[in-house]
Amino acid sequence: MFDILETKERVLADNEAAAALTRKKMEQFGALLVNLMGSPGAGKTSVLLQLIRLLNADYRIGVMEADVDSDVDAKTVEAAGARVIQLHTAGLCHMDADMTRRGLDALGTDGLDIIFLENIGNLVCPAEFEIGADLRLMLLSVPEGDDKPLKYPLMFSISDVLLFNKIDTLPVFDFDIGLATQRAKALNESIAVFPVSAKTGEGFEPVAALLREKIEQRRIQA
Amino acid sequence: MFDILETKERVLADNEAAAALTRKKMEQFGALLVNLMGSPGAGKTSVLLQLIRLLNADYRIGVMEADVDSDVDAKTVEAAGARVIQLHTAGLCHMDADMTRRGLDALGTDGLDIIFLENIGNLVCPAEFEIGADLRLMLLSVPEGDDKPLKYPLMFSISDVLLFNKIDTLPVFDFDIGLATQRAKALNESIAVFPVSAKTGEGFEPVAALLREKIEQRRIQA
Repeated sequence: MFDILETKERVLADNEAAAALTRKKMEQFGALLVNLMGSPGAGKTSVLLQLIRLLNADYRIGVMEADVDSDVDAKTVEAAGARVIQLHTAGLCHMDADMTRRGLDALGTDGLDIIFLENIGNLVCPAEFEIGADLRLMLLSVPEGDDKPLKYPLMFSISDVLLFNKIDTLPVFDFDIGLATQRAKALNESIAVFPVSAKTGEGFEPVAALLREKIEQRRIQA
Repeated sequence: MFDILETKERVLADNEAAAALTRKKMEQFGALLVNLMGSPGAGKTSVLLQLIRLLNADYRIGVMEADVDSDVDAKTVEAAGARVIQLHTAGLCHMDADMTRRGLDALGTDGLDIIFLENIGNLVCPAEFEIGADLRLMLLSVPEGDDKPLKYPLMFSISDVLLFNKIDTLPVFDFDIGLATQRAKALNESIAVFPVSAKTGEGFEPVAALLREKIEQRRIQA
């Protein structure tokens, strides 16, 4: 086990250096980079479509769609009005900082105010690989269960924003939002929590408001 | 990217060699090893409890509960009557063949007829790392969506059995079982598909029958 862990530490250190470069680059561009993470089927693409709907009139939006090897989501997101690039991880379970940097170069950051990376559906690996994002936004959907902070603690620890998605299905699942919030906050006191439904659109106004605030801050910095 | 891919191939080759050893060992013991995989919240533990309920009277069951670092599930499964060991992957997103072998040694295979490994909740990494299982059983839950075979094809390609779980929630989700089956079969013609609900217990009899058949076959081989 020891050798494996040492290899991993080296990989993570290299990754952190690459992420720092991206962070600096985004500051220069005056654009905000958001790392969107969650399980398969948690609703990442649908959440993205809701956020594009609310931000599209005022901001220019870029999206990097990371997939193991499909392009199901990229077409939908492009139709919603964002500048889109499809990234294939060729079997890898996460995006790393270097792949993200290449993605940003290929997408072209010029003129964009906010760029979302829709990460691979996974609660483990993406939590370990910093991509140089300004904001880490994770989804936990109601059908997944309110025990997930206990099982995948790192993801909740490193995220800035947590959306409880699919709240329209609360009547059919034993999901306690209070308990889930308490478990997430025990890991990460400052995590901002929003219950939403990407199906009905409920709850997205305050999430969009938070993003607007961050975009404006970044513009002033640049 | 090239270096990364070469490293990965080496890791996978070493893993395959370790998996082959486990496979031989299980044949000698006369026990069946099942690799249980699925997304976070797909219902792996609840499915396991249903299968234990149906098999417990006739067979001695062992369970290896792999978790990133919790032991939420191990207690529940032990209470259901299985011999249980908790495995911590220390942040890794999958179990590999070597970790599985250590787990089997620690659990003690003597006297057991069937051993389940509940893998880390993830549709990517566990598909790449063979553990030496006799049967790969994956879950796709209705709330995750019927497009998942398109997005995580490897998992569907390498699985022997696919359970569509949470069918009690079909009325609230746009999930087409026919379409999902067709997409899974396009990747893997011989995959056996069963719609189930671990909440209500519906649909588990044929799954248990399949496992009984495999256990009996293994006993004859040993």
